[in-house]
Amino acid sequence: MSITLEQAEAAIKAAKQKAEELGTLMNIAVIDAGVNLTAFARMDGAWLGSIDISIKKAKTARFFNMNTGDIGALSQPGGPLYNIEHSNNGLISFPGGVLIKNEKGDIIGAIGVSGSTVENDHAVAVAGAEAL
Amino acid sequence: MSITLEQAEAAIKAAKQKAEELGTLMNIAVIDAGVNLTAFARMDGAWLGSIDISIKKAKTARFFNMNTGDIGALSQPGGPLYNIEHSNNGLISFPGGVLIKNEKGDIIGAIGVSGSTVENDHAVAVAGAEAL
Amino acid sequence: MSITLEQAEAAIKAAKQKAEELGTLMNIAVIDAGVNLTAFARMDGAWLGSIDISIKKAKTARFFNMNTGDIGALSQPGGPLYNIEHSNNGLISFPGGVLIKNEKGDIIGAIGVSGSTVENDHAVAVAGAEAL
Amino acid sequence: MSITLEQAEAAIKAAKQKAEELGTLMNIAVIDAGVNLTAFARMDGAWLGSIDISIKKAKTARFFNMNTGDIGALSQPGGPLYNIEHSNNGLISFPGGVLIKNEKGDIIGAIGVSGSTVENDHAVAVAGAEAL
Repeated sequence: MSITLEQAEAAIKAAKQKAEELGTLMNIAVIDAGVNLTAFARMDGAWLGSIDISIKKAKTARFFNMNTGDIGALSQPGGPLYNIEHSNNGLISFPGGVLIKNEKGDIIGAIGVSGSTVENDHAVAVAGAEAL
Repeated sequence: MSITLEQAEAAIKAAKQKAEELGTLMNIAVIDAGVNLTAFARMDGAWLGSIDISIKKAKTARFFNMNTGDIGALSQPGGPLYNIEHSNNGLISFPGGVLIKNEKGDIIGAIGVSGSTVENDHAVAVAGAEAL
Repeated sequence: MSITLEQAEAAIKAAKQKAEELGTLMNIAVIDAGVNLTAFARMDGAWLGSIDISIKKAKTARFFNMNTGDIGALSQPGGPLYNIEHSNNGLISFPGGVLIKNEKGDIIGAIGVSGSTVENDHAVAVAGAEAL
Repeated sequence: MSITLEQAEAAIKAAKQKAEELGTLMNIAVIDAGVNLTAFARMDGAWLGSIDISIKKAKTARFFNMNTGDIGALSQPGGPLYNIEHSNNGLISFPGGVLIKNEKGDIIGAIGVSGSTVENDHAVAVAGAEAL
């Protein structure tokens, strides 16, 4: 079970709407269950450095089956997963990466959002994930 | 002058329609004038190795302001740009990367397509580029 | 549908037996349908440079759903996919990477073998893939 | 003196048994004295991001001849090896990488485990290392 392009595009559409509501400009990436890029959109004027971050957030969420912020809570100095970000060609462990599940609760992919505060990034990612 | 997300999504939509007409499954990437990923879509079941190739084709076209196949003609053994593919973290120099221009003829981005023969890849990329 | 560890280990076991029959020392890698490493074994004394090659062969086969040698036939100078090896962090396009399918014919992963001639590498990979 | 494939597979078998006892799904990597991958297994459903981490843990242990957690104690902010994780294409310095020694106490390789808490990862790695 993996996300389809139609589902990924629906997630991106919902995420863009949420981003517009918040007055933000976002990069939005969706990957499938196998951690492969499925769809991507950068809103006009969004940070260029956030292309890579949004993709890495989506991948990081699926790599460990948890939202990215949960990993960041464990990777701080003195924490159990300190500097885990050096694995997998670079993780992003702050909020904005959220798992996408189907109706049965199976993980079918993940969405990563970057372009504003981590609170806004997370809110936009959740809006995308919940569109399915 | 650079491509907008709306234009990029129109290019991807047109490319997908052409891909379906040809009975192919494609990865389609659009980058802006600054060589930054703007939009991406992988049709369900398209080759996983073509994610990277479609992005590299789009970048390669804009890096040198020519379609990718034109670079490949110069990068052969004995040619003036032999093995230029080693630059820029990897180029793809066979057909499927096409420049996107506006009405005035200004280059505003590029589209890269991968998933079938190079002839089909090129035809789908042209369909996307001409949608604008 | 993706290969299980039990199936991957059965493939490696069969490949090792074939390698011993041929009097060769092989690196053997199995990846799943999502192009993620599932199992690996290096026979004692096998080439160290073949660790990476065996993994890349398995990935290359799945990236494009064909045996690696078929890609190499297309990536020669003057061929349609010249220098495709620069994509995906490095492909290996000579024989030794073979798709693994289930009884229904679905692709569930791939096996990559490296350590001898490409003919032997391919024969060992086929033995592994056919063990399922 | 370096670990054999037979020994590496015995270590992985013992580690898998321990992982099952703990109710966890692990990625398990064994490298030899020369820091080269010797054997690997990913239990069905184990985190995809832990493939790379398990391999990096095994390598990190052998790079410095100490268990990975010991390095993490030195790589914290203000510590003597602050951010050593940037070396060698990425280290993992939290627990789960353990040296493998022969009867004489010679280091013959290392095992890296990733997929659960660092306590479980370490326990599974120790079980694998002690199987020899």
